[in-house]
Amino acid sequence: MAVGLREPPPLGPVGGIRIGTAAAGIRYPGRTDLTLIAIAPGAASAAVFTRNAFCAAPVVVAREHLARSALRYLLINTGNANAGTGEQGLADARECCRALARHAGCRPEEVAPFSTGVIGEPLAVARLSAALPAALGQLEAGGWNAAARAIMTTDTVPKGVSRRFTCGGRTCTLTGIAKGAGMIRPDMATMLAFVATDAAVAPPLLQRCLVGAAARSFNRITVDGDTSTNDSCVLVATGAAGGPLVASPRSAAYRQLRTAVEEVCAILAQAVVRDAEGATRFITVQIVEGASVPECLRVGYAIAHSPLVKTAFFAGDPNWGRILAAVGRAGISGLAVERIRIELDDVCIVERGARAAGYREEEGQRVMREPEITLRVALGRGRRSATLWTCDFSYDYVKINAEYRS
Amino acid sequence: MAVGLREPPPLGPVGGIRIGTAAAGIRYPGRTDLTLIAIAPGAASAAVFTRNAFCAAPVVVAREHLARSALRYLLINTGNANAGTGEQGLADARECCRALARHAGCRPEEVAPFSTGVIGEPLAVARLSAALPAALGQLEAGGWNAAARAIMTTDTVPKGVSRRFTCGGRTCTLTGIAKGAGMIRPDMATMLAFVATDAAVAPPLLQRCLVGAAARSFNRITVDGDTSTNDSCVLVATGAAGGPLVASPRSAAYRQLRTAVEEVCAILAQAVVRDAEGATRFITVQIVEGASVPECLRVGYAIAHSPLVKTAFFAGDPNWGRILAAVGRAGISGLAVERIRIELDDVCIVERGARAAGYREEEGQRVMREPEITLRVALGRGRRSATLWTCDFSYDYVKINAEYRS
Repeated sequence: MAVGLREPPPLGPVGGIRIGTAAAGIRYPGRTDLTLIAIAPGAASAAVFTRNAFCAAPVVVAREHLARSALRYLLINTGNANAGTGEQGLADARECCRALARHAGCRPEEVAPFSTGVIGEPLAVARLSAALPAALGQLEAGGWNAAARAIMTTDTVPKGVSRRFTCGGRTCTLTGIAKGAGMIRPDMATMLAFVATDAAVAPPLLQRCLVGAAARSFNRITVDGDTSTNDSCVLVATGAAGGPLVASPRSAAYRQLRTAVEEVCAILAQAVVRDAEGATRFITVQIVEGASVPECLRVGYAIAHSPLVKTAFFAGDPNWGRILAAVGRAGISGLAVERIRIELDDVCIVERGARAAGYREEEGQRVMREPEITLRVALGRGRRSATLWTCDFSYDYVKINAEYRS
Repeated sequence: MAVGLREPPPLGPVGGIRIGTAAAGIRYPGRTDLTLIAIAPGAASAAVFTRNAFCAAPVVVAREHLARSALRYLLINTGNANAGTGEQGLADARECCRALARHAGCRPEEVAPFSTGVIGEPLAVARLSAALPAALGQLEAGGWNAAARAIMTTDTVPKGVSRRFTCGGRTCTLTGIAKGAGMIRPDMATMLAFVATDAAVAPPLLQRCLVGAAARSFNRITVDGDTSTNDSCVLVATGAAGGPLVASPRSAAYRQLRTAVEEVCAILAQAVVRDAEGATRFITVQIVEGASVPECLRVGYAIAHSPLVKTAFFAGDPNWGRILAAVGRAGISGLAVERIRIELDDVCIVERGARAAGYREEEGQRVMREPEITLRVALGRGRRSATLWTCDFSYDYVKINAEYRS
């Protein structure tokens, strides 16, 4: 029951990128669970990974390969996260890269592996390898929509977006797909995103662009506060559009690229929250008038992680006491309650730390009936702000996460 | 549906303490919602309060009065938290103290007010004041059990415990009552505890004793991670047992007192978790082999706050992948997954960061069927440890917190 999210329209092909999928039977027979993203020679790749100290084997191997080589293939499987699998998991991830290298005629370190699915089970390397020729045989520029579907686990809607943008005077394409959110499902581990453009970008600048965009998109969403062991986001720039190399962070071309990447990452990140398990409401949390961005984020996450606030949103209850209490426990020193203002969409519910003088409960309830709500908290301490996105907390979240093995 | 918790037996009277209750009709007519704890002259009082930056009006006033005066009365109401009520809330809390002072013939600053209940509503000061003579008329040494019931809000079982202990060669009594846990219920704010002994204790040492005991009891429990605006814990030492004054932290008498206070606080704190809304399991989280106590606590709370771990406990699912992922996201630098060991009661489920060699799923499931479970995580980094207590996360938690206004 995704909130305001529909299957994406046909996604724009990106010159230099071809995609193939196959059914390897990794967990469920007949399910398309293997995706190959083939990258033309000469492309630059950037990536950001989970900050969970116990990252999965494919994350370790993808990091190693990115540091050593340009990438020619992204090899993605669903059905098994290859996490909590120790030395065998690392060996399995490496063997998958070697198998693809043999079939595709590249070096193993030109392959980056990504896995999502059950934790703690050995990866079915033989079945995965056996399906590689089929995926290679399917490689095509128009494979983005099929891939958006193939990388899903508990997602209910495939997630993808395409944008055309001007970069250094050349019209370029930027297309991305993503799956999952947080650690939503028992044994499932989770967020993956793959974005590519045909702009030409120097590798250090591409990494900088991705880190900045992820900081304001994938790192600004929360469903349950649980960071996955497998989160990975890759940005590829093929240069196939034929434009000049974007190499200076002060160039107009870089600003154009950055704007497009930020937009695409924000749409994908928000799609992940819209499709969060059990979600019935999509909530934009804006913290304004903070002394710093980090303190705005602390307050924002204290609200977005509060089970009491999240269940109130599920119930459509404009429960400002819970929101105020969450702000108060965020650990901001010197916070003055008498300066706090809270708004739900266009309705001011709290002024000077208490119920707003003109506030009527019916007004708050009207806003709370909407599926998409903006919660704005003004701290009255400065001019900094931060925005993040979250969802409500419903029976279905507990059901999905409690009944998976029953 | 409290876990392993029954109504307490008759609680032992404490010399110098008398308790009275009354029905003031603060929120519900006919409900006993007012409690007076009268303290004999010469007693010492210590207190710890919520660290929520937006503490409720009674917390502000209780802190002021404690700093200025010895206490003669604790005045406790349920049904209204007097939180998020601004200047009027402060004036109301002060007026309640003045009203009691008039009736009881003491000074207003000898009264400390405590409130729990709905947030953001004005306190019914007139109704509360009108019931004071009835409560004063009821004062008796045996009033502890009635008070344990009168301070409840969403609690299903009254919580209290009594212990006899030897202090400086004299047999003393220590009795305490508590209510609530976290911010469990819509509009409810929450944890209150009142403990008294007839030992004689110097005020600075009594405060030190309470701070230490609270750190290992009330500050080691979590239900939903939401710190209430009203949390308060008071420890009174009347000296009525006639023993020598406990005045040195190195004395045997202080160690005896500290042991008894820590035991009573731990039992009350655990009772609060056992009665947490929707709880079906009582979980002891022990983090061992840490480099420091703070890092053990960080790991412990990352587990205890994880909705995925909590729903797995609700489902009776020995889901070690979720536990491992929660440990990994606790933000401990240099954590080595290959050193992690996880045990559920007597069953080792994770060794060296992966599924334990001899582990069989049936063994994990056997443990998970128990209503009380110890989860032990060894970090392999040092010799420090910490223990905290939490509960699972059930449909009923969402139901109670979402449907309150429906």
